[in-house]
Amino acid sequence: MNVFQEINAPLRTIMTPGPVEVDPRVLRAMSTPILGQFDPAFTQMMNETMEMLRQVFQTQNKWAFPIDGTSRAGIEAVLCSVIEPGDKVLIPIFGRFGHLLTEIAERNGAEIHIIECKWGEVFDQQVIIDEVRKVKPKVLAIVHGETSTGCMQPLDQIGPACRELDVLCIVDAVATIGGTEVKVDEWKLDAVIGGTQKCLSVPSGMAPITYNGRVERLLATRKKVERGVAQEHDRVHVQHPIRSNYFDLSQLQDYWGPRRLNHHTEATSMLYALREGVRIVLQEGLEERFERHRLHEKALIEGIKAMGLELFNDVSWKLPMVTCVTIPDGIDGEAVRTMLLEQFGIEIASSFGPLHGKIWRIGTMGYSCRKENVLFVLAALEAVLIRHHASIQIGQGLQAALNVYES
Amino acid sequence: MNVFQEINAPLRTIMTPGPVEVDPRVLRAMSTPILGQFDPAFTQMMNETMEMLRQVFQTQNKWAFPIDGTSRAGIEAVLCSVIEPGDKVLIPIFGRFGHLLTEIAERNGAEIHIIECKWGEVFDQQVIIDEVRKVKPKVLAIVHGETSTGCMQPLDQIGPACRELDVLCIVDAVATIGGTEVKVDEWKLDAVIGGTQKCLSVPSGMAPITYNGRVERLLATRKKVERGVAQEHDRVHVQHPIRSNYFDLSQLQDYWGPRRLNHHTEATSMLYALREGVRIVLQEGLEERFERHRLHEKALIEGIKAMGLELFNDVSWKLPMVTCVTIPDGIDGEAVRTMLLEQFGIEIASSFGPLHGKIWRIGTMGYSCRKENVLFVLAALEAVLIRHHASIQIGQGLQAALNVYES
Repeated sequence: MNVFQEINAPLRTIMTPGPVEVDPRVLRAMSTPILGQFDPAFTQMMNETMEMLRQVFQTQNKWAFPIDGTSRAGIEAVLCSVIEPGDKVLIPIFGRFGHLLTEIAERNGAEIHIIECKWGEVFDQQVIIDEVRKVKPKVLAIVHGETSTGCMQPLDQIGPACRELDVLCIVDAVATIGGTEVKVDEWKLDAVIGGTQKCLSVPSGMAPITYNGRVERLLATRKKVERGVAQEHDRVHVQHPIRSNYFDLSQLQDYWGPRRLNHHTEATSMLYALREGVRIVLQEGLEERFERHRLHEKALIEGIKAMGLELFNDVSWKLPMVTCVTIPDGIDGEAVRTMLLEQFGIEIASSFGPLHGKIWRIGTMGYSCRKENVLFVLAALEAVLIRHHASIQIGQGLQAALNVYES
Repeated sequence: MNVFQEINAPLRTIMTPGPVEVDPRVLRAMSTPILGQFDPAFTQMMNETMEMLRQVFQTQNKWAFPIDGTSRAGIEAVLCSVIEPGDKVLIPIFGRFGHLLTEIAERNGAEIHIIECKWGEVFDQQVIIDEVRKVKPKVLAIVHGETSTGCMQPLDQIGPACRELDVLCIVDAVATIGGTEVKVDEWKLDAVIGGTQKCLSVPSGMAPITYNGRVERLLATRKKVERGVAQEHDRVHVQHPIRSNYFDLSQLQDYWGPRRLNHHTEATSMLYALREGVRIVLQEGLEERFERHRLHEKALIEGIKAMGLELFNDVSWKLPMVTCVTIPDGIDGEAVRTMLLEQFGIEIASSFGPLHGKIWRIGTMGYSCRKENVLFVLAALEAVLIRHHASIQIGQGLQAALNVYES
């Protein structure tokens, strides 16, 4: 037998685009003894979580509940429940997570149409709308906040245009939910996937989603009640049943809805975490929370610039909770990250694909998005860069950030 | 805004076949502040968890890791990664969860072959082996511990026969892992799925799986590295790619293996829980833990019988951690369950399908499997049955259980 010691995890300052530090109140909520999944005290908590999720998504949708898996489980649940083989799906790609949408849609038999722009840019909404008119897809699937490039795609015109053209608009808001506006109803988004481990500051392992009646009606045409719990009137023939049982939203609805039809065993402790996480978001207030994200973003940006470093995403479409810093010439980005972790216990992120080795990504999300963390990461980055002989403005970063905080 | 109060969950005595009470040490482990998913301190914990899972599965397999989802996510991950459209899959069904295997295999395009026996029975192993010879499937998928009926299917001859016939033997050991022998290597099982929320006493939300080189070689033929993280040498054509991205074991391997290729964001707090859960299992000792499950099963059975109630699964193939009690004539099973919950805070289970309304199912799993709980459930059941005017032997149940504990 090889039995290890109990967990003895170092305490980190986590300034990545996720997963980020979990609010201590959420950590505490997870240590609540569990309840059975059909215990009335538990189903009441499920309902309360749905009600609070609706508010976070700024929607009147009936359906707003978590998928029991990490964020991409939420994306897959929506896409595989909506896409039937041969369906046209249009995916505008402006970073890694657009590719992920393609990956998932493709495996579900979609006929994929892609438009791409350079990593670091986003699309003019009219370009996407024109493409929707041209391709006439069943689904437009698009990322809202692209953490790989630190860019945010405006959606306020795309959603209404899709509605008018009878195209389903599905949005990956994993990075943005709880950190900036995601106006599901106002923007006329049909299905939206949020993430827990970013601005909600809940551990990874659940993916809150919401969808409207348009999606629900589509699901109804593919619905198949599970053998073993089906009753006689449930047995209907379905032409293209949903390919996944675990991600079948038509079944999950029956579990989250009043029928409470047994499906998976709800992930109790993660639900406690999510319930507490969204409760904290609403307690802070959506507007106040978005404002806090903007404040710390500003302090970080000013500090970075004052240090003499260049921002990769100093653009009007910058994702407010991810700041991308161009790695100075001659500096080994990974060596800097390692030293930050080993000497300061601070984690920042590298990037993917064409940006790998070119930028650092610093997150200011949820509970990690606070003054001490911003000041500490600036102080540490300066010290590590001096140690790596980078040419920077010494002593200026913290002063600039303090100016923001004191103004 | 409608913001609810913080969690205030009642404390229950959970005596169902899952989810069961979580070990307090596991609850505590979950409140550990999180680490980034590629933090060396975290990847070391991932490796330690794999090492301990191997021991729990009694295997030398290289691959033993959790799927980030509930138990059926583990089942779906294995089945959808192995089954290609048109593959013959043989599924012997002896309860609800055999139907679940069918449900999942079917959605993955399998050609399904079913043999069924009456709920409450299991198969003579030779019957299954003969069917394997006849059908010549690619996969035999079978449940080990069927919680819906409280029965356990012996597998020690089925596994070796499948190996000899070059059939992949995939086993749902969700209910049995950590509570009774699941000898993956000795029984020559190719892939096995365990559950967290039963005998491991970890919350629902992860599904530990293991599979051997035979499965790994099959995965290699279907491997497709994700766009956005793929490198040039990764781009190969695959005839039948795995239909799910989230459940693609060939990609998950690259995340759990030394390549550490980015996939989902590992569910940190659930991994902490699982690591602590399997650590506690190994610390107790597998043999000692199985013996503990047998002891409390015996006390419960003796108590139930002495009360004058009838066991539904008083058979040699009884699942040691689930005791099914026939609901006496004229008694409303649901009213009894409700009173147990409302007056005593005790949860026991009803059942599904043909057994619905006919039996109660009482679990003795993991942390719930202890003397106080067994004695309390017997005391409460007696009181509630007296209240419902059932004809039982008053005062005998606890005496019989105490006899077991004191002998």
